[in-house]
Amino acid sequence: MEFSRYNSSHSSAPSAPELPPDSYDHQQHQYQGYYGNPSPSPARPSSSYGQSGGFPAGTQADVVRAFQMVDRDRSGFIDERELQQALSSGYQRFNLRTIKLLMFLFKNPYDSLRIGPGEFAALWSCLGHWRAIFERFDRDRSGRIDSMELRDALYSLGYAVPPSVFQVIVSKYDNGSGKAELDFDSFVECGMIVKGLTDKFKEKDKGYTGSTTLSYDSFMCMVIPFLVSYD
Amino acid sequence: MEFSRYNSSHSSAPSAPELPPDSYDHQQHQYQGYYGNPSPSPARPSSSYGQSGGFPAGTQADVVRAFQMVDRDRSGFIDERELQQALSSGYQRFNLRTIKLLMFLFKNPYDSLRIGPGEFAALWSCLGHWRAIFERFDRDRSGRIDSMELRDALYSLGYAVPPSVFQVIVSKYDNGSGKAELDFDSFVECGMIVKGLTDKFKEKDKGYTGSTTLSYDSFMCMVIPFLVSYD
Repeated sequence: MEFSRYNSSHSSAPSAPELPPDSYDHQQHQYQGYYGNPSPSPARPSSSYGQSGGFPAGTQADVVRAFQMVDRDRSGFIDERELQQALSSGYQRFNLRTIKLLMFLFKNPYDSLRIGPGEFAALWSCLGHWRAIFERFDRDRSGRIDSMELRDALYSLGYAVPPSVFQVIVSKYDNGSGKAELDFDSFVECGMIVKGLTDKFKEKDKGYTGSTTLSYDSFMCMVIPFLVSYD
Repeated sequence: MEFSRYNSSHSSAPSAPELPPDSYDHQQHQYQGYYGNPSPSPARPSSSYGQSGGFPAGTQADVVRAFQMVDRDRSGFIDERELQQALSSGYQRFNLRTIKLLMFLFKNPYDSLRIGPGEFAALWSCLGHWRAIFERFDRDRSGRIDSMELRDALYSLGYAVPPSVFQVIVSKYDNGSGKAELDFDSFVECGMIVKGLTDKFKEKDKGYTGSTTLSYDSFMCMVIPFLVSYD
């Protein structure tokens, strides 16, 4: 793997002086470039959690409870509104567009409109990790992080976003004052977009060269699912 | 240019039997492949329409009036809420997410948050063309088109969307019954996504080969602006 081209393409190098020294796992980033942590691998879903448990071994009771609370028909799957409600018990009420993005990224490969226990447990665990990162950077406990903190938080999640890309991201969360401020909901949305697109790109760039050849069809099929409808 | 590879990649060939014979401009599509009509080229904006007119020669009076009605401070630029209001007089009240997409695609290169008379006139004219296409396919005047009509309408706009891509698009507008139905607002959103992404891809694929090599940075910068925030 060629790492020099990754590390030279972004300014948030592990030694960047404005970053707290405890924010980075140097060893981890040295080998990841911009490509981030391995994606959570949802357990293969069973058709119902009654059948074979469904939840991965060691799933905490509150996660199982949150799922079962909303899966009233005990089908073993929940839809987006139910997911929104289930996450409220552990995190907060997320915007429906964040929920749709989470559904898409953690979806059951056999049913794109619902998720099962395995995916739910993976998603819950991922959000827990992201919540801890968010709180580490929300130093004044305002519930919001600014753009520099966002950059550091994404870096801590394993995504060293190049400056040109980061500028585009920040402009999307600009509140009109020229500054971006993100609450946890927006942070999850933003991070999931970065994670999702990076993972999709990585699938095509198997050699980790930092570029890949895409056909028009594959480009469109990669990108359109991220353009979520909210009706 | 190699056209065979485009035309073989989609099933909506000009001779497809289920399509009305008057829906296609055979000559036009033969040379366009999936790449569509030339984009409207907004006139270069002046800093104020008071300075040099701003509107392209021949702009209809109702277009000028719609713009001036909302540009109350006579700055020569309107923001997204004003655009929403201005389009209401000629078309309808579009969803803010469609407005944001239109702002992005027709934006003034010098000011990404506002558009001027030149861009407004180009946008108005483009919508007029799309409205005519929409109405042609909305045969029962229900105000909605289904997925097959959507495919034909996109084709009439010059976009022969490959089946794999079209399936992804339709799944996004599925109303839960397994069928997609789009009103004019959704049609504009959907069409602008297809147009915008195709135009971006075409910028990179200058040789019209149907594929292109993208760096991670350029891929992310191309795509993220389409992932509109709606707060």
